[in-house]
Amino acid sequence: MDTCALCAGAPAMEGNRMSLYMGLDIGGTTIKGIIMDEQGCISAENSIPTVCGEGLADCCVELADKLLGAAGIKASELTAVGVDCPGMIDSHHGKVVFAGNLRLKDYPLAKLIKEKLGGVKVRICNDANAAALGEARFGAGKGYRNSVLITLGTGIGGGIVIDGKLFEGFKSAGAEIGHMVIEKNGIPCTCGRKGCFERYASARALELKTKEIMADDTSTAMWKTYTEKTATAKTPFEYMDTDDAAKKIIDWYLKNLACGCVNLANIFRPEVIMIGGGVANQGSRLIDPLQKLVDAELFGGTDYAPVKVCVASLGSKAGEYGAIALALRP
Amino acid sequence: MDTCALCAGAPAMEGNRMSLYMGLDIGGTTIKGIIMDEQGCISAENSIPTVCGEGLADCCVELADKLLGAAGIKASELTAVGVDCPGMIDSHHGKVVFAGNLRLKDYPLAKLIKEKLGGVKVRICNDANAAALGEARFGAGKGYRNSVLITLGTGIGGGIVIDGKLFEGFKSAGAEIGHMVIEKNGIPCTCGRKGCFERYASARALELKTKEIMADDTSTAMWKTYTEKTATAKTPFEYMDTDDAAKKIIDWYLKNLACGCVNLANIFRPEVIMIGGGVANQGSRLIDPLQKLVDAELFGGTDYAPVKVCVASLGSKAGEYGAIALALRP
Repeated sequence: MDTCALCAGAPAMEGNRMSLYMGLDIGGTTIKGIIMDEQGCISAENSIPTVCGEGLADCCVELADKLLGAAGIKASELTAVGVDCPGMIDSHHGKVVFAGNLRLKDYPLAKLIKEKLGGVKVRICNDANAAALGEARFGAGKGYRNSVLITLGTGIGGGIVIDGKLFEGFKSAGAEIGHMVIEKNGIPCTCGRKGCFERYASARALELKTKEIMADDTSTAMWKTYTEKTATAKTPFEYMDTDDAAKKIIDWYLKNLACGCVNLANIFRPEVIMIGGGVANQGSRLIDPLQKLVDAELFGGTDYAPVKVCVASLGSKAGEYGAIALALRP
Repeated sequence: MDTCALCAGAPAMEGNRMSLYMGLDIGGTTIKGIIMDEQGCISAENSIPTVCGEGLADCCVELADKLLGAAGIKASELTAVGVDCPGMIDSHHGKVVFAGNLRLKDYPLAKLIKEKLGGVKVRICNDANAAALGEARFGAGKGYRNSVLITLGTGIGGGIVIDGKLFEGFKSAGAEIGHMVIEKNGIPCTCGRKGCFERYASARALELKTKEIMADDTSTAMWKTYTEKTATAKTPFEYMDTDDAAKKIIDWYLKNLACGCVNLANIFRPEVIMIGGGVANQGSRLIDPLQKLVDAELFGGTDYAPVKVCVASLGSKAGEYGAIALALRP
């Protein structure tokens, strides 16, 4: 039996005296899964390649069986299973409404898994929302009732937890925080709008801006180790202390990120905004100036209801933990 | 006894066989109040001038006594009292944290009213939030579980109802939808930011734009009946069918309003967005083109989870009804 990932190495309890939960995190290439008890002790952890299309539920059940075997329990001993999945998910009806990469449309994922696991309770939600729930329950948002996760990647994903509960909007179609316009008539977005937050503050936006500046300014020190083709979102952070062009890119990026953060802070007034994705690995180089910019613009100031900005802490595990948090919901 | 405002003139029930609720809507100059039963029948309605400062609770109780007298009941026969108030309100603790116009700071309004009304349950919230709750329960949002109210005035106020419940954010400090930047580095806002939604889509923004355009273009037909000083937010609507300059102003305004609506739709994915304030009196001249613009930009399109745009229906009564809705909360 594995030791526990959350309670400092103490072994998970034997037997089924505690409530046990399974979390499955479906990605485009891999499904990761864990079994955890109510105290956060992990008794099994595994992954298998994702089968796209109609076979997805069987694939989930195959992983579930492996996890149950490793934990030495039966499906009937699970209190609930949480599953997160990319795409448009109707969590209320347990359906994948549409998931392009998984080649699924109107797919009753929760019902299929439930049937194949002998009737155990199964809940599903979108992967970005699950990550927000995971961070809120087990990660950087632990101890707060209201949190927002902003994940900086190719786009901007994320999710919102209000009073301890995942917020998804009507038919689970909300929380599209990357598609909030912060610059009317700005950079065109894949969603059809112009000037979306993710066009200015995603890791991809930072990379594109860096490449654009490098192409325009061959005197910048960034050319020492990168070209306009090899530069990434990390490049300007590496050079920000020694190169003016890099510093300017970071200033531009931080202002954009702060703009979206303050919008979300004014709308949701969470206690904490957690930043996830590769850019968040910059740690205090990102968070410290971002917190200052957010504090300077927060509606009504910071005295009454401050909003903390921090790095998300679960990394690639956020989905699995989120799936567990979904299963844990009363 | 008055006839009922909501159930087509049928008289409200006599006696106290039904649960009765009181709603008090505190404004800067007037406090309006009603007593309503659980079926929406009004048994008393009145108002008195607002007493600012520490005497506010006594003033509320004076109005409450008048309402109780008119309804022929005692305070102990009320199930609950709802009170809404401008300013920063901590609804959880029943306190006015700060209300500049009412000259109040850290004022335990709910507790004071409760004591003076013999211990009846008292709930308070911010006036913009109450209006959203009122519209959701009794107005244009009736029948929907998820709605957003956008009130267009000097600024942009409003509120959000999620799954039938008022959303207020941590310490009731959220839902500041007017202070969402839609144009980075745009028009300076009273909140200290630049480019806030309310600087582009409030009634005031429309009025200022009209005056600016009239000052620049003395050939516009709007000069027939208005000057750059007398023009209001109504002016371009009056001339939009016959004057190019007026039409351009309306197009500019609608795009701005749609931008904020779609941001809120993508974030909250409500079933309905209700537009309140004087501009909403334009009815279909405002709503029809706005709905088209929103539909064209809504994330994922309109098939799966459409968002209806409509005019708020309670007008100046939204606060009172919202206070009742607050009292009705289980």
